[in-house]
Amino acid sequence: MRLRVDALPRSSSDVGYQPYADTVLVVDTLRATTTAGVFLEQGATALYLCPDLETARAFGGDGVVLSGERNCLPPEGFQLGNSPLIAREGRFDNQIVVMSTTNGTATAAIACETGKNVILASLRNAHGAARKAIEVSSEEIAILCAGNNGRIALEDVYTAGVLCEYLLAMGEWTLDDGAQIALTVRRQFADPLEPLSRSRSAENLLAVGLEADIAVCAEVSSSTIVPVFVGRSGTALIFKTA
Amino acid sequence: MRLRVDALPRSSSDVGYQPYADTVLVVDTLRATTTAGVFLEQGATALYLCPDLETARAFGGDGVVLSGERNCLPPEGFQLGNSPLIAREGRFDNQIVVMSTTNGTATAAIACETGKNVILASLRNAHGAARKAIEVSSEEIAILCAGNNGRIALEDVYTAGVLCEYLLAMGEWTLDDGAQIALTVRRQFADPLEPLSRSRSAENLLAVGLEADIAVCAEVSSSTIVPVFVGRSGTALIFKTA
Repeated sequence: MRLRVDALPRSSSDVGYQPYADTVLVVDTLRATTTAGVFLEQGATALYLCPDLETARAFGGDGVVLSGERNCLPPEGFQLGNSPLIAREGRFDNQIVVMSTTNGTATAAIACETGKNVILASLRNAHGAARKAIEVSSEEIAILCAGNNGRIALEDVYTAGVLCEYLLAMGEWTLDDGAQIALTVRRQFADPLEPLSRSRSAENLLAVGLEADIAVCAEVSSSTIVPVFVGRSGTALIFKTA
Repeated sequence: MRLRVDALPRSSSDVGYQPYADTVLVVDTLRATTTAGVFLEQGATALYLCPDLETARAFGGDGVVLSGERNCLPPEGFQLGNSPLIAREGRFDNQIVVMSTTNGTATAAIACETGKNVILASLRNAHGAARKAIEVSSEEIAILCAGNNGRIALEDVYTAGVLCEYLLAMGEWTLDDGAQIALTVRRQFADPLEPLSRSRSAENLLAVGLEADIAVCAEVSSSTIVPVFVGRSGTALIFKTA
């Protein structure tokens, strides 16, 4: 099987764009894919990932929680931001969480364009996400990093390396250059808090007083919840627990 | 000063594209920026980097050598491919070398769109290129990796790490996430031949029997020649020895 790491999303119009042949693990460590998993851990029945705030707001109403960020902060009219710490303090039983974030949502949309199986992965669910990916894949697992506004994010490449390490322990792989780089980065840092804290994304969180989120995002395999793409509602991508 | 590593080129229409504020070191380790330097080492008066084969051919004639590749091999009508090994065996005194390659040329064009100073860097001229970059920069040095047909190339990220290491030894820097990743990759491999040999680009060279080029590209700071962007002739970018 092939193991591919894309350190940044590319859209289908980009030079050298390669569609996803099989399974895609979408990674936005700080914080969208981490927080998405926490909502499902805390009882949400489904996540709706929306490309823009207007689409998200249109889903608002009974049984729906609007969550997201622009410049790290909750958009107007949203009940929640994108904080895994705050999500972990809530209960979302019988509720749908509608999310719209800057990097993670658009990246998931690129994965869903061509991927047969799309999974939201983070450090928190890394082991479970890797296991699920192997279970459903027949030729390729791609790890697609969201990055930070079009720039490579250290924390996402690190998480990709952690996922690669789990996958290597479970099978035989042909690694692309991106996977080799991700593994190198993962092996450089024994403590996941270090790469996460040294990233530009961490700086941005610090600037708005949300640095406590980083420790939650740095927990490795503390959750067994794996959000899997199950379909669409309009332009929203629906994810549910596998 | 800021130190920025872009593991892949982005065009100005891409999400999150950031123009280059100051100096750009363009890296295409296997093989364009390596071979470009060798041509100047071997006496060429200038390099003309052309976006396509037709533009390159139009410069053909007395005192001009056409060099380049498509799928690693010399295009029709070109005297030379993109082999640093073969370039090193020739003399190009009083000649202009017109180059057109798949990744390096387009990447140099992106750098020249906004960069104030654009330099072609490789492992062979890493120390000289880093020194030159510091000499001409006032706020930012960006290392722009060409990659391999839109995918991250291990050998380019490694070379970026070598350049970062030289720069760190010569000044104080704010590192972006890309620079931190490149330094990690550089420190993982004591022998530069290892990352170069493990790359997808090396596989491609092996497939066409050009693997002997890899050792030439893996020589660290064996050359003091630094190709610097000096102007244009039509759509061709002209580089000369600094």
